[in-house]
Amino acid sequence: MAAALNKEMFDLGMAPNAIRAMFEYGIDRAEEIGAENIFNYSIGNPSIEPPEEFNQAIIDLMNNMDALELHGYSLTPGDKGFRQAIAENLTRRFGIRADRNNVFITCGCTAALTICIKALTSKPEDEFIAFVPYFPEYRVFVETMGGTFVECEPDEKEFQINFDALERILNPNTKALIINTPNNPTGTVLREDVVKRLVDLLHRKEQEYGHAIYIISDEPYREVVYDDIKVPFFPNLYENTFVCYSFSKTLSIPGDRIGYIFVPDEIEDKYDTYKTLVGTGRALSFVCAPMFLQQICAKCLDVTSDIEVYRKNRDLLYGALIEYGFDVIHPDGAFYLWMKAPGGDADAFVELAKKYELLLVTGATFGDSKYVRLAYCVDEDMIRRSLPAFKKLAEECHLK
Amino acid sequence: MAAALNKEMFDLGMAPNAIRAMFEYGIDRAEEIGAENIFNYSIGNPSIEPPEEFNQAIIDLMNNMDALELHGYSLTPGDKGFRQAIAENLTRRFGIRADRNNVFITCGCTAALTICIKALTSKPEDEFIAFVPYFPEYRVFVETMGGTFVECEPDEKEFQINFDALERILNPNTKALIINTPNNPTGTVLREDVVKRLVDLLHRKEQEYGHAIYIISDEPYREVVYDDIKVPFFPNLYENTFVCYSFSKTLSIPGDRIGYIFVPDEIEDKYDTYKTLVGTGRALSFVCAPMFLQQICAKCLDVTSDIEVYRKNRDLLYGALIEYGFDVIHPDGAFYLWMKAPGGDADAFVELAKKYELLLVTGATFGDSKYVRLAYCVDEDMIRRSLPAFKKLAEECHLK
Repeated sequence: MAAALNKEMFDLGMAPNAIRAMFEYGIDRAEEIGAENIFNYSIGNPSIEPPEEFNQAIIDLMNNMDALELHGYSLTPGDKGFRQAIAENLTRRFGIRADRNNVFITCGCTAALTICIKALTSKPEDEFIAFVPYFPEYRVFVETMGGTFVECEPDEKEFQINFDALERILNPNTKALIINTPNNPTGTVLREDVVKRLVDLLHRKEQEYGHAIYIISDEPYREVVYDDIKVPFFPNLYENTFVCYSFSKTLSIPGDRIGYIFVPDEIEDKYDTYKTLVGTGRALSFVCAPMFLQQICAKCLDVTSDIEVYRKNRDLLYGALIEYGFDVIHPDGAFYLWMKAPGGDADAFVELAKKYELLLVTGATFGDSKYVRLAYCVDEDMIRRSLPAFKKLAEECHLK
Repeated sequence: MAAALNKEMFDLGMAPNAIRAMFEYGIDRAEEIGAENIFNYSIGNPSIEPPEEFNQAIIDLMNNMDALELHGYSLTPGDKGFRQAIAENLTRRFGIRADRNNVFITCGCTAALTICIKALTSKPEDEFIAFVPYFPEYRVFVETMGGTFVECEPDEKEFQINFDALERILNPNTKALIINTPNNPTGTVLREDVVKRLVDLLHRKEQEYGHAIYIISDEPYREVVYDDIKVPFFPNLYENTFVCYSFSKTLSIPGDRIGYIFVPDEIEDKYDTYKTLVGTGRALSFVCAPMFLQQICAKCLDVTSDIEVYRKNRDLLYGALIEYGFDVIHPDGAFYLWMKAPGGDADAFVELAKKYELLLVTGATFGDSKYVRLAYCVDEDMIRRSLPAFKKLAEECHLK
């Protein structure tokens, strides 16, 4: 590597991405033996089209909005009207008091996360806790923004929260906990009693340490939830909360990079906190979130893609895997299944599954190498065709 | 400020923005005395609509492209087809050998700049030079990415390059020079002989120091240029160049955040350099540039907004200001005029101009408090109506 370059950035650029590598293997393999013979469960790309309202909004805006405004700069925290509309939507749904000054529009959930992390990081000792298994970029974002990343060991029974492990790692340097519910990769949603216990613990620790401990709630899958499961809305439960939301999964537009941060009035020093987010967005060069997308999404706040499709996929795949003897966590939301690797070695199991053209992702990517992830945002037909392969795989693993 | 927050980010969020403050003053003042009586030269927002091809591209894509692909993730460096199309466009225009592996799509020019700066910064001693007057965010980006920002004093006669000043500040810690031509705020384009002298100097210094010195060429105004003035294409002139381009001004879509980095084959360790950009884009949480915008712009590479409108504005305003006795740099491109404040105190002159409802921006914003900036991306009619006010202002300053 050239001496002139930043070595950490180079290493990140060279780092293998297990998800994308498996996805691209699937594309190559499909060319070899036919797409109908490949069962690609590797990637979390929405498989349902954006709702009709999304395209209608584009047409409406092109016909009725001044083009210079539609594609012009918004304020750094986003278009005032869009922010107000989001605030009203959240008020309506969660009964929280909010207006546009509680909302900061971002280039997707990833930007929301980095802005919150950077805004809270003053020194390398500032610690951010994520719960195994976790979205691998959490570590990258925390370390790039200058903080310290800390893993909390999982509750391997239910993938709720392992409170013993959490209590062991909480300390006066703890700045924030990154919560992701519905969860990627497990598909679990934190239960009400677990959230209550978490909130009580953090309140106690804030008292003990004499400073705020924040929850950064990463919520791209908020609307992707089944069976009337209730997703906790942390601002109603805990003061020092940042909600990071994305329209990627809700509207099936992950490439368009649009989301927001919600900051409740109850957060410590709310005015200063919001101003710090503004400064951080500026410093990280975001200028503003894409204005065209802001305007489109402003017209789509009450709609989602057809989530029911994912529920059907879940039921079909989960039911079959359980029947074949696999040990699978029951997913309440998102579009992932978290499955124990028979034998306990995810990498070996992923290789074995490839023999049956089943493309899974090793849990090592998410910090737990005893599990694999299956992304079931795929054609239902692919799931049906894959079931005999899973059955054979189960048999080879002597599961029943 | 709450102890939990990053103080530098808070300060940035609280920092007054002279451009926006003046722009908003203009909006308030227009409500008081009527928009027709306010001459708002404060902000560099394009005043010409996007070209018709832009809207046509949206319709075409909605009708003909799979919605999941149109709004899906691209690779981190951008959609392969869009990158290849840009490479071919540059090959056609500048005769450079290029393919998609020379192009990295970004969320606008600001993201392009921060990615380059971060990719080149390994320690606080790494120095980035910008030429006074400069876009104020250069300092913010360099300092946020962990480097040291260094100002080079201007050539106050022509606002080309002050080589004496540059030679004084070049040193073994110099990592890169940020070049912006056509320039915001002066409107000048670097002349061929100046560029040649710069390249010779940097080649000599690279030899002397035994390491690369990079040019980061910030080019949002590349297509906004008049009278067949030729804008230098640095990759043809200097090996260690990053071109940072934006579609903001070319297509009048500044809010949509889409641009690219071009990395020539001749740059030192090209493969590693490109990979470092990929890692940096990932670390800074960009994921990918907005895919919908990538696809739209891919269909608009050979068109621009009607730049001729800006040329007419320039001729009208420049001619009148010279006639009234102001000392104005002749702009070759962009849509700004850089005018010496009579008396030499920009802040005082800006206040004086307000008496005549002329809203200008102090040069202090750009590192030079003896000048003011006028953004003439406005209605031609506003310019005409403003001329009597400029005349009176000149008289009050005893210019003739």
